[in-house]
Amino acid sequence: MYHIGIDLGGTNIAAGLTDENGKIICKHSVPTIRERENDEIVKDMIEICRTLCEKSGADKSKIKSVGVGCPGLPDREKGILLYSCNLNMENVPIAEVMQRELDIPIYIENDANCAALGENICGATKNCRNSITITLGTGIGGGIILNNRIYSGSFNGGTELGHIVIATDGELCGCGRHGCWEAYASATALIRDARAIAAKYPSSEIYNAVSGNIKLIDAKTAFDAAEKNDEYAVELVNKYYEYVSIGLVNLINIFEPEVIALGGGISEQGDKLIIPVKKLVEESVYGGVLKTKIVKAMLGNDAGIIGAALLSEQGVK
Amino acid sequence: MYHIGIDLGGTNIAAGLTDENGKIICKHSVPTIRERENDEIVKDMIEICRTLCEKSGADKSKIKSVGVGCPGLPDREKGILLYSCNLNMENVPIAEVMQRELDIPIYIENDANCAALGENICGATKNCRNSITITLGTGIGGGIILNNRIYSGSFNGGTELGHIVIATDGELCGCGRHGCWEAYASATALIRDARAIAAKYPSSEIYNAVSGNIKLIDAKTAFDAAEKNDEYAVELVNKYYEYVSIGLVNLINIFEPEVIALGGGISEQGDKLIIPVKKLVEESVYGGVLKTKIVKAMLGNDAGIIGAALLSEQGVK
Repeated sequence: MYHIGIDLGGTNIAAGLTDENGKIICKHSVPTIRERENDEIVKDMIEICRTLCEKSGADKSKIKSVGVGCPGLPDREKGILLYSCNLNMENVPIAEVMQRELDIPIYIENDANCAALGENICGATKNCRNSITITLGTGIGGGIILNNRIYSGSFNGGTELGHIVIATDGELCGCGRHGCWEAYASATALIRDARAIAAKYPSSEIYNAVSGNIKLIDAKTAFDAAEKNDEYAVELVNKYYEYVSIGLVNLINIFEPEVIALGGGISEQGDKLIIPVKKLVEESVYGGVLKTKIVKAMLGNDAGIIGAALLSEQGVK
Repeated sequence: MYHIGIDLGGTNIAAGLTDENGKIICKHSVPTIRERENDEIVKDMIEICRTLCEKSGADKSKIKSVGVGCPGLPDREKGILLYSCNLNMENVPIAEVMQRELDIPIYIENDANCAALGENICGATKNCRNSITITLGTGIGGGIILNNRIYSGSFNGGTELGHIVIATDGELCGCGRHGCWEAYASATALIRDARAIAAKYPSSEIYNAVSGNIKLIDAKTAFDAAEKNDEYAVELVNKYYEYVSIGLVNLINIFEPEVIALGGGISEQGDKLIIPVKKLVEESVYGGVLKTKIVKAMLGNDAGIIGAALLSEQGVK
C-alpha cells in the first residue's frame, strides 16, 4: 500500500507518494496562490493526488490514506482546517471534500507536527520514542513526538513551543506577549538584532556586507560576519546561541526527550550552530548531565510530506 | 483487590491501603528519620505494609501491588531509587528488597508524579486525559499526565517543571541556573522577596506582623499583609501572581492540558491565589482564549499515596 502526504504551504502545495515506510516514491507540487478561493486550493490538492497516482503508476485502490499538513489549527477528528492566518482559511472542511472526490481516508494535522513526525519516521529522530523537532525560522515552530505519536494537546491550539517566555518583560513577541523564546531565537529576532548593530556600528562587518543597506541584512549576514571574526557579529551570534540554548534547556528539563532536532533556515548553519548550542545546553541542563542529543533535522521540506503521508498510522488518538 | 501506596517523604513515611479506585481505606505513617541507614527505612516500609493489612483486615493475597513515591530519581524498570538528596539515598534497590519480603509486585516513581497521578485518579484532574499538577512549595514540583498516564521523560531525570527559565540572567536558582520559574514563584522565592521588603521598609505590615523579626516571615505573612491592604505586600503578592502565571502560560502553550491543578503550601490561599492568577493567564495565553482550567489541587498529602498505590495500573510504559 501507498500513502500520499501533502504539505499545504503559503507558497507551494508540495506533495509526495510514499511507501509504508515513508520513502518518497514520487513528488509533485503546484503554487498555492493563497489569494484564491479556498475551494480552488482544495481542488488542487485533489488534483495533485490524481497526478501522483498517474506519475507513479500506482492504482488509486492502493492508496491507503492521504494526509494534509496545514499551517494553522486543524480539527483532527472532523478533518476541518479551523483557522490559518497564513492561508486566509477558516473552517474549511478539507477532509470531507477530498474524501468525497477521492474515496480515500483523509487526515489533517498541523504542519509543524507533520514535520516532527516525518523526522521521527525516517529522519533525525528515527528510532526515538520521545523527540522534539524545532524549526528556527521566521518564527519558532515545534512538534512533539511522545511514544512515537504526535502530541498535540487537548484542544486544537497545538504546541506553541516558540511561545515560552524566557525573558519576563522582555522583547515584544508577535503573539502580544513579552519575552517569548521566538522573540529572541527566531531568524526574525536575529535579523532584528543584526540590523540594530549595523545601524549603531557602521564599522561592523554586518554593515559592510550589505554596503550599509540595512534592509538587506538576513540571518546569514550575521553568521558570515561572525565567521570573519567581526567582533560585533561574534558577540551577536554568541548571544543568539545562548537564547537558542535557554529554550532548549527548558524543553529538555520538561520533556527529557531522546533527541531534539533543529530545522528551519537557521539550521543550515549546521555544526556552526549545533556545537556551540550543545555546549551551552550542557552547561545549564538540570542535573548537570545532558542525555538528550541535539542534532540538525535531516529531511528539510520532505519531513512535512512524509509526516502527513503517514498520519493514518498514528493509531487511535 | 487492594493496593498499597507509600509516600516516602523527608519527614514521614505515609502510607495507605486503597481499593481499585484509589479510595483510601486505611492509613498509617511512621517518621522517616532520614539519618538512619537506608536499610532501616526500607524495612519500615515493609513493616508499614504489614501493619496496613492488619489494621484493615485485608489478606496479603488480596494486595495487587505496592507503589512507592520517592523524592528523587527512580529507575522505574529496575525498581531502584537512584538518587535522593532529601533522603541521602543512592542506588537503593527498594523494589527488590520489598518484593522479596512481601511477595507483592513493587513499583517506584517520583513523588511529584505520584501526586499528579493521584489527583488524576480521584482529585482535581479526574476525568482529564491531559493534566498537570504543580506544587508551589519550597520548590516548584510538577507531574505531567498525558493520556491518563504519567509522562516521565526518556531517562530518569523526570519532568523538572520548576526549572524553566522565565527570566534570562535573573535570580540564581538552587539548580545553579539563573532565572528559573522556581526562583520566582516558589514559596521560598516569595519569602525571600517578602523579607527583602521588610528589611527595606520597616513601616510595612510584613515587618510589623513579625515585630521586625524578619526570619519569622513566611509566605502566609505576605498574603495576610496584602489582605490588610499593606501597599508593599499588595505589590509583592501581585508580582508573585504574575510570576506564577508566566510559568503556567508557558506550560499551557506547550501542553494545552485540560486542567492544571495547583498544590503545595501556597495553594492553601485558595481563590485568593487562583482567581488573580487565572486572570493573568487569560490575558497572555497564546491565541487569547484560555481553555485550560486552573484549579486548586484537592487531595493534599493523600494524592501521593493514591498515585503510588495505583502505579501498577499505568500499564506498559
